[in-house]
Amino acid sequence: MNTFGRTYRIHIFGESHGPLVGITIDGCPPGLPLTEDDFMADLERRKAGAVGTTPRKEDDLPEIVTGCFNGFTTGAPLTIQFANKNVRSGDYSNLIKTPRPGHSDFVAYKRFEGFNDHRGGGHFSGRLTLALVAAGVVAKKLISPVAIQARLIQAGGNPNIEEAVKNALEAGDSVGGLVECKANNIPLGWGEPLFDSVESVIAHLAFAVPAIKGIEFGSGFAAAGMKGSQHNDPILDDSGKTASNNAGGITGGLTNGNELIFRVAVKPTSSISVKQSTFSLESGKVEELEVKGRHDACIALRVPVVIEAITAIALADLKMHMQARII
Amino acid sequence: MNTFGRTYRIHIFGESHGPLVGITIDGCPPGLPLTEDDFMADLERRKAGAVGTTPRKEDDLPEIVTGCFNGFTTGAPLTIQFANKNVRSGDYSNLIKTPRPGHSDFVAYKRFEGFNDHRGGGHFSGRLTLALVAAGVVAKKLISPVAIQARLIQAGGNPNIEEAVKNALEAGDSVGGLVECKANNIPLGWGEPLFDSVESVIAHLAFAVPAIKGIEFGSGFAAAGMKGSQHNDPILDDSGKTASNNAGGITGGLTNGNELIFRVAVKPTSSISVKQSTFSLESGKVEELEVKGRHDACIALRVPVVIEAITAIALADLKMHMQARII
Amino acid sequence: MNTFGRTYRIHIFGESHGPLVGITIDGCPPGLPLTEDDFMADLERRKAGAVGTTPRKEDDLPEIVTGCFNGFTTGAPLTIQFANKNVRSGDYSNLIKTPRPGHSDFVAYKRFEGFNDHRGGGHFSGRLTLALVAAGVVAKKLISPVAIQARLIQAGGNPNIEEAVKNALEAGDSVGGLVECKANNIPLGWGEPLFDSVESVIAHLAFAVPAIKGIEFGSGFAAAGMKGSQHNDPILDDSGKTASNNAGGITGGLTNGNELIFRVAVKPTSSISVKQSTFSLESGKVEELEVKGRHDACIALRVPVVIEAITAIALADLKMHMQARII
Amino acid sequence: MNTFGRTYRIHIFGESHGPLVGITIDGCPPGLPLTEDDFMADLERRKAGAVGTTPRKEDDLPEIVTGCFNGFTTGAPLTIQFANKNVRSGDYSNLIKTPRPGHSDFVAYKRFEGFNDHRGGGHFSGRLTLALVAAGVVAKKLISPVAIQARLIQAGGNPNIEEAVKNALEAGDSVGGLVECKANNIPLGWGEPLFDSVESVIAHLAFAVPAIKGIEFGSGFAAAGMKGSQHNDPILDDSGKTASNNAGGITGGLTNGNELIFRVAVKPTSSISVKQSTFSLESGKVEELEVKGRHDACIALRVPVVIEAITAIALADLKMHMQARII
Repeated sequence: MNTFGRTYRIHIFGESHGPLVGITIDGCPPGLPLTEDDFMADLERRKAGAVGTTPRKEDDLPEIVTGCFNGFTTGAPLTIQFANKNVRSGDYSNLIKTPRPGHSDFVAYKRFEGFNDHRGGGHFSGRLTLALVAAGVVAKKLISPVAIQARLIQAGGNPNIEEAVKNALEAGDSVGGLVECKANNIPLGWGEPLFDSVESVIAHLAFAVPAIKGIEFGSGFAAAGMKGSQHNDPILDDSGKTASNNAGGITGGLTNGNELIFRVAVKPTSSISVKQSTFSLESGKVEELEVKGRHDACIALRVPVVIEAITAIALADLKMHMQARII
Repeated sequence: MNTFGRTYRIHIFGESHGPLVGITIDGCPPGLPLTEDDFMADLERRKAGAVGTTPRKEDDLPEIVTGCFNGFTTGAPLTIQFANKNVRSGDYSNLIKTPRPGHSDFVAYKRFEGFNDHRGGGHFSGRLTLALVAAGVVAKKLISPVAIQARLIQAGGNPNIEEAVKNALEAGDSVGGLVECKANNIPLGWGEPLFDSVESVIAHLAFAVPAIKGIEFGSGFAAAGMKGSQHNDPILDDSGKTASNNAGGITGGLTNGNELIFRVAVKPTSSISVKQSTFSLESGKVEELEVKGRHDACIALRVPVVIEAITAIALADLKMHMQARII
Repeated sequence: MNTFGRTYRIHIFGESHGPLVGITIDGCPPGLPLTEDDFMADLERRKAGAVGTTPRKEDDLPEIVTGCFNGFTTGAPLTIQFANKNVRSGDYSNLIKTPRPGHSDFVAYKRFEGFNDHRGGGHFSGRLTLALVAAGVVAKKLISPVAIQARLIQAGGNPNIEEAVKNALEAGDSVGGLVECKANNIPLGWGEPLFDSVESVIAHLAFAVPAIKGIEFGSGFAAAGMKGSQHNDPILDDSGKTASNNAGGITGGLTNGNELIFRVAVKPTSSISVKQSTFSLESGKVEELEVKGRHDACIALRVPVVIEAITAIALADLKMHMQARII
Repeated sequence: MNTFGRTYRIHIFGESHGPLVGITIDGCPPGLPLTEDDFMADLERRKAGAVGTTPRKEDDLPEIVTGCFNGFTTGAPLTIQFANKNVRSGDYSNLIKTPRPGHSDFVAYKRFEGFNDHRGGGHFSGRLTLALVAAGVVAKKLISPVAIQARLIQAGGNPNIEEAVKNALEAGDSVGGLVECKANNIPLGWGEPLFDSVESVIAHLAFAVPAIKGIEFGSGFAAAGMKGSQHNDPILDDSGKTASNNAGGITGGLTNGNELIFRVAVKPTSSISVKQSTFSLESGKVEELEVKGRHDACIALRVPVVIEAITAIALADLKMHMQARII
């Protein structure tokens, strides 16, 4: 399904090498000030260009094509699109003969019976995160004054990020990374028990981001090794403030008035120059594969702004859904 | 929202100390053989009774009240209910004066403006997982021959589980645990890119289970420290079998024909006998709290069958949703 | 799908001759006063007993089994159930050999491959409207001070209702009817353009009620024969009040501040004593059929309270959904 | 909500005088042959140009911007867009001072707090039906060999359609119309009891089409005046064929193997040249209004292809949803 959300609902579409990628946001209230400029700061953070990121450079210029009028949202579906300009148009074969290990090439070909648009990963491409970032910008406005900040805290297993990336680049290899996200000023009580727990909604969206393979809230996996007497966060006052924050700001699935904190594990970019072996759909045998062109040595560098976006989207939806339930 | 799923849809309801907990399954095909007996093995695994689990013993007898006829599902909504028999009925106060740290007591009271049924955690109670286990039993039938097995692989941070639990019990404390789940015989291609990735759907449901604070697929958090040349799983043949399984059986959000493998972190039970401090809603001051009665010293002992259930529910939904999309 | 609604969401379940019929309401806010007594007036109106209605008399006693505590809704899923007490238990055959014309017997048997619970119509039974009436009672509270009133304005094609019913009864036959529903005090602006137009949502629910075969809003079918200069309702003031009400209180899919008015056509009860012919699934030939027992000679007599209920459900959902979309 | 459908899901967006209107279809299987040419015949039928329709002529050229590759659907979200070329760009005022009777002008202004794009009706415009027609073209392919045909059978209350339109044109007035839709070759058993009855789903979509104010299936409103012995359709054979078709091809909410037949009432176009009075938002008084420009004298002329489209969309969704529910 290309939709996420109950009330702040997003519908994503597009392919890496087709005409465009885009997103329609349904449920945005009327009267929110919004222009293309509002997207630029976050889009810039996601953009290729830093050391360790792919040299393919798109303009990544957002176009608001529906739902805005005279600089304000109208309350009608809000659509933002990004033209794909920098596209290599030669290749119209439907077949990737040598599917790249770690990529969607093979499963997409099998699942969609060879009809998938495989160029640049098609609908599976990381380029779709452009649309998530755009939806995140709108969501951030809706949940103001909630402040969200994500950053890369490790690459290749240690905090010396520049060095890890440089080493990977030189080796024609790639490295994974760890991204931490914190959000403040969230009122107590957003989220629902069970299926709409804050963890459920954020995790659902986080795993929609290519390359994410793990998520943990508060103490997370460390909690599995703790005692209750260590892990329980003593409540200090009527606002719900706690002395420690092992819960990561979420109790019983609801925000508890403390800082929301979680981390996601980003696997290393699958595209590497190092020689690999794979099964050839053409020859029916295992063959050597050398992926040409340059790619992100550390895709995790571009992930923080995407994680901020999905956090904002999740919170906007939970906030608006809760608003509905007032007598 | 009390609903999960696109096609195999479950609706959960009930409270720990109300008349019952239950679940309605919508989308179950007609003709599936089903009787109350089919639920007993999994319910038994979830049940209290082992060392380290709560001594509250319910019969936990499932009643199929709608959607079955003459031993087969009818295709109409299938409802399974569990009466709450072992309920302490005295307490009808709406106020938990001293909300327990780590519990939903405080946030539930604030969010639902004091109208929540707080008794035994109410709708936030782990007792609701009974309903998930029931829906899991039906789902397991629907995805046969997929075989799912989850088990507790660590408690308190190490594999010596019995000892960790015993120590916690003696100290009036509790310990967290790590549960690993594996599923085999899943065809290649279940799931969707982006919002219905296998990781997204499983994670969404996993975080609906009280006490889960982290999830990782395949190499998971370790992947954040790996290089691409280590993490990429070489494809060996036309079935998609790979030489390693760092992806945990999921590529591009879709099952890739290999074993599905993931782990969840279970925090230690919040209810402990050890003295704690908390904010009293009555006095408006921080007070000492001593939780009476005995509780699960290691709730993680009861989690594996719940994790199997949510895995089956997720896979049943993805399987059925995919079936719909055939010309 | 057994669910209706975006925000005020209802999940229906049950069969005519199974243990129970019920409904779970998700999205009801906490703090709404609610007891079983609140349902009795509307249930009484739906109940069998009047001249022309079936002599099967159930107690139709509602049980609130989840989501209420100390006389108030808690904000958790609210489930109301009705035990089926007056059930003839002898017949456990899966086969209706001579499917009744106009009934679901034949299509249900074919669609559900013979696994459907055919007894008393099973999940297709009009008895399921009990659950709708219950959900309507809660919805009416949520949209107060909106006042809804539906009544039967014709039976058998003319307003002399008692006589038409009496004649049908004497002939062992049945008659259809016309029900008109009016709702007042609805604020301007509920509903959405396109898929959530007020007409769309009400019509969707109205056709979920067995026996409804037509619906029209305002001038309805008469509008097809009118000129624009006749049909357009002149706006009189800033509240949106119009001089005429051909639109039935809905413009552009939204409530326009005037009385909401619509009519539904109720077909005559299918069960009649008059001899009919049908295809026998046993003999494979057309045979004569005589339906025994007594049935509703005019099911339309019991429909008004159901139509009020679905109107309230539709309006509650639209109201709450709109509330969500406020900055 | 801008979404309709469970499995064949459509998301609509756009405004009459913005850059474009469009639709994203989620759930379309891979491998369906599809090019822009496939849309032309149905778009032509909807297009302005015939006597009695508006002289605004758009090219109405569809662009498939996502979800197609090399002439086949890929299984990814399928987006079709229509640029708005013939747009009068001068007017950027947010205020319609004299809201037209029968139009959405007034309610849209009030509901969306003046932020709505009022130009040409904005998101409320009949131009949005372009997107429905496009989604209908794809749906028709998916349900082949089901054959759907809708036609205008009355205008202004009688079958002499040309004359009624001519008279209205000459008077600067407009007329309503009656559209009948028939669909053949539908297998028995599509649809669900209750909320997904065929009537519910078709009616929901029909009332999303501007100007529709009534719908009836089979004998429809006439059934309200009939006896059961007249209305019941005798079953003739094992395929479900019936001797009469008062049910309009639907029993118990499911298709019954006979021709699906229903009618919709189309109100007269609201825009007329005849003088009318309305409340002026500027002066705060009732004023005379003369709508300039020419409009559709009988919008019903353009409705049949839209009704075919929504019927195909409804049936595609029900078909695919049923396919999901097979063991």
